[in-house]
This record gives sequence, structure tokens and C-alpha cells, in this order.
Amino acid sequence: ASFEEVAYMLWHCCLPNRDQLDNFEQDMIGRRGISFQVMELVRSTPPEAHPMAGLRTAVSGLALSDPEADDLSHESLLRKAVDMTAKMPTIIAAIDRVRKGLETLGPRNDLNHAANFLYMLHGREPTEIEVRAMNLYLVLLADHGFNASTFSARVTAATLADIYSAVTSAIGTLKGPAHGGATEAAMVQLFDIGDVDNVDAWFEESRAQGRRVMGIGHRVYKVEDPRARHLRKVAAELADQTDPKWFQIAERLEQVARQDSYFIERNLYPNVDFYTAPMLYSLGIEPDLFTTMFAMSRVVGWTGHLLEQYADNRLIRPR
Amino acid sequence: ASFEEVAYMLWHCCLPNRDQLDNFEQDMIGRRGISFQVMELVRSTPPEAHPMAGLRTAVSGLALSDPEADDLSHESLLRKAVDMTAKMPTIIAAIDRVRKGLETLGPRNDLNHAANFLYMLHGREPTEIEVRAMNLYLVLLADHGFNASTFSARVTAATLADIYSAVTSAIGTLKGPAHGGATEAAMVQLFDIGDVDNVDAWFEESRAQGRRVMGIGHRVYKVEDPRARHLRKVAAELADQTDPKWFQIAERLEQVARQDSYFIERNLYPNVDFYTAPMLYSLGIEPDLFTTMFAMSRVVGWTGHLLEQYADNRLIRPR
Repeated sequence: ASFEEVAYMLWHCCLPNRDQLDNFEQDMIGRRGISFQVMELVRSTPPEAHPMAGLRTAVSGLALSDPEADDLSHESLLRKAVDMTAKMPTIIAAIDRVRKGLETLGPRNDLNHAANFLYMLHGREPTEIEVRAMNLYLVLLADHGFNASTFSARVTAATLADIYSAVTSAIGTLKGPAHGGATEAAMVQLFDIGDVDNVDAWFEESRAQGRRVMGIGHRVYKVEDPRARHLRKVAAELADQTDPKWFQIAERLEQVARQDSYFIERNLYPNVDFYTAPMLYSLGIEPDLFTTMFAMSRVVGWTGHLLEQYADNRLIRPR
Repeated sequence: ASFEEVAYMLWHCCLPNRDQLDNFEQDMIGRRGISFQVMELVRSTPPEAHPMAGLRTAVSGLALSDPEADDLSHESLLRKAVDMTAKMPTIIAAIDRVRKGLETLGPRNDLNHAANFLYMLHGREPTEIEVRAMNLYLVLLADHGFNASTFSARVTAATLADIYSAVTSAIGTLKGPAHGGATEAAMVQLFDIGDVDNVDAWFEESRAQGRRVMGIGHRVYKVEDPRARHLRKVAAELADQTDPKWFQIAERLEQVARQDSYFIERNLYPNVDFYTAPMLYSLGIEPDLFTTMFAMSRVVGWTGHLLEQYADNRLIRPR
């Protein structure tokens, strides 16, 4: 499925038929542009700022010029969910280009969500495999139950705060290295290893020092993360067409880890971050932009949960 | 105690001695100024935007120019806690003056936290009772255990996201009418009643229609909220020196509610919002600014909790 179909499904319960999908895609396309005010916020951000801090501030800022920001009716919430999802790629691409001193690019209405993002980021039309990989990633990350960012969005919404507040909380929560920030850490690990011939020695040293291997093991999954299987496959395809080095390091690291009794006994398998890292890097995306990719996808899950929370609310306030 | 003493206590465990307090106050005073970038964000905000949306975006934006934003060492976290606390009054006063078309005012180094805020808001030095009331409010609201905004701050921090992310989550969560937004709702209720002679009829009608009385009852307290007692007293004093009408309506509303069997049987007493509303209004603060007052105080509680969370962290991720 396309990311647009999955977004529709998470917000409306079922996959759209062809007419519904057409209308929905047009609505998304029409909402991709960002205001002068939000673009100014991006432009005035120091280039050293973390892109997630920029995204968090920009999404929070979207509320300022929305006269319906505090409207909690289902119709208005849904409109704002579509709006934030449509605008986030534009904001993220602008953040990356502005800090590199490049001109920002407006969205291309003839490209789908995944392809248009890559176009706005790189200034060239992406290849078929690039679009397929980006779309697959966006689909696989779109929702994952009560993860920490989704939970924080619900805690915020449960005071009947507006949906911009709730999504802003989720972005801030996702930013942490123990959540969305882990994909960037997995890439830094691949850089640290540096070459497929170093994997075995690096792994032995890590084990000897009791250092954690990033991207292996999950708080919930005690089997292979089903998302990792699909990401491994597309990462391999993409690696063949670009630089295969980082994928090969990751693949070898999985092999040596899965032969180690510590990892076997504790059912530690590659998680969603493990092959996402070389895959996103092969798409020409900077490692410190990885968490914003996660946000660009998960925003549909967050807002899907939020539609439920607002519809049947109770304050979340532990003793 | 002064708000500064309470902030110090919440961050350092104990009340400061005179030297510690002097140093701490000077540190706070030195951090009151906000950058051109944050001021521009305030200036470019449409006057209709909710002040809490502006505060949320501005506090999130403070991270963008802080090269230490992601530093989780205790020393750096504490510095940022002081920084956000010192800057919030400046941001809030600027939001209110900009939307009214007034010049913004820089902080006055010879005034304490409460007095300086009222000065920056109104452009005149506040009276003794005004400073005392503002300070009392800031002290009483500074912390309150695991309320929803504090919890959301901890959920965000538990992914090891930065402290700006965590405080931004808390501001968004506080914004909801079921949490910080309730004080504004309590004031709207006083406007709705309009005159002390209308209280009894208004109350009867509310009961008949099953409408909730704002500012009475609390999720945790089943006795009188101890904060309400102190706020009632200072609100009365302040009312005597300004317009007594709104306090008198509140006082009469408490009397009729506490004579009603529904309120007696369920142990429903005035909560912290009930007398805060007429008190803040007597200080010349707009009702839609009330939740930002709450944030200006609670930020020391949030950051106190966050220092604990970062020091002994575990991911908060329910199934």
C-alpha cells in the first residue's frame, strides 16, 4: 500500500476505495505548503540546532495561525491531522536545505508523499527504488501501539488540550535516543565500525566491554521485529544501486550477534532501527535527520490514537 | 517564602541560606532576557493565537539557539531549568503586550520575579499587595505531585529526550481545560454569573441542568484544597483594593455550593482554580493569560521532577 492509503486507513478504519483515495491524495497535496511565518522560523534557526528541535517548534507554531486550533470536533481534528501530515515533509526538507545554505523547494503536486519529500530534500526526482524504499519505511513506521511518543500525545490530549499540543509532545518524546533517536545511534554505530572486515573484532570488543549493540533487541518483541524483515530486503536492494558498504556491515553484525549465546538466549533480534539506518543513509538522508523521518511517518499513528482519545476521553494522571 | 526560595528548594532539596539565595536571585535576574529570534517569534504571532500556544512554541524555540540543548548532565539540566524559569515571564509579558499593540518592556533587575513580571506586563511598578498576591500564587502552584503536565514531562524525558522537549510537552498538557485551562474557565463562569445577586439563581439553574460548577471538586483532594484557603484570603485583600465584585460572586458561590447536599455528600470543595480566577483578574491579568501564569509557576515543579527522572530513568511505555 502507499503511505497515503495507510494514513487513510488509520484515520478512517478501512482502506479507501479508488474515489476516496483520489480525493484524499488531492486534499493532502493541497495542504503541503507552509506559511511565510513557519518558513521564517526555519530560516532563523541556527544550522547547529537539532532538526527534531526545529520540527517540534515548527509544528507547535502551526497552531498560531490556525483559528480552529482549539476546536476538538472530529471533523476539525481530522482536518488538522491531514494538515500536519502533509506539511511535515515540507518543514523537514526546508530545515535540511536551509542549514546547508541551499534554496528551499516548493512541493511537486505530481509526486506522491514519499517521492515529493525526496524531491524537496534533494532537488531531483527520485528513482523508482528510492520512492519504493521511502514509501515502505513510511508505511512500516506509521503506528506501533502504545509506544512512548503515542502515549505522551494521549496524556497531553487527555487534558483536552488541542491536537497541536499533543503532536508537539509526541515529537519531543520521539526525539529521545531511547525511542526515535535510536535509528541515528544505529547509523553512528555503523560509522564507528567503518568496514565489513572490522565487524567481528568490533563485536568481540563490544561484548568484552559490556557495551550495548544498537538496533538489536526490543522492549516488546522477543522474536524478529516483523518490520526488520521488510526493511532488510529493501535496504539490500538500495545498497546494490548505491554504496553497499553500510548494509554489508549491518548484515554481518546481525550474523555475528545471532551466533552469540547472549543474544540467542535473550531472544535479541534486529529491531526496526537496525536496517532502517543503512536504508535511510542510502537515500541520501543525513543521520541527524533520521528521527524526523520517523516523525513524518508516525504522525499518522499519533493522530489516529488522538482521534480515539478525544472521542472517549479520561484524564491520565497517575498518583 | 519568595518564589525564588521555593524554586531553589525544589531543585536543590532545601531552602537556601542568605548567600545561596543572593547568588541564585542574581543568576535568575541575569537570565531574564530573551533572544531577538524568540522575540521575533512572539512579534510574528497573530493576536488571536492562544497565549499558551505562543508560550509552547517560544519555549520549544529556546532550544534552537542553545548549543547545550541535548546535554543531560545534572549541571546543564539545572542551568536550563533556571533559564526557562527566568525567561517565561518575559515571554508571557511580551505575548500580551504585542497582541495589544503595546511596546514590549525589558526586565527590571531591581525587582523580584513576581514584581518584575507585573512590571513587564503593565508598565508600572506593582503595589505591595499585588506583589504579595502574585508571589503567593507562584509559590502555591509551583508543584503538585504527579499531575498530568508533570507526568507528560516525565514521559517525554524518559526516552532521554532533552529538557526543552519535556517542558514543551508539559506546557501543551497544562493547556487543556481539564488541567491548567480550568482557571480561565472559572473566570468565564464568574463573568457568566455577572453579579453577586445572580449567584443563587445561577446555581439553581446549573444544578437543574446538571451543569458542572467550575473550580469546585478535585481529582485528588476530598477535603478543602489547602491552596484555596490561602488564595481566598489574598483574593479578598486584593478585591478590597480594586473591584470587589468578582471575589464576592466567588465567595457567594462557595457558600451556596457548600450548602447543597450533592456537594456535601461528595466532599466537593473549592479547588485551586476557584479563588485564583478573581485574584489574577484583580491583578489586571487577562483570563486567557491565566494558564500561562500556571506554567510560569509550575515550570519549577516540572523541572524538579525532570531532574529526578533523568537521574534515575526508565522508559515509560505502557502496553
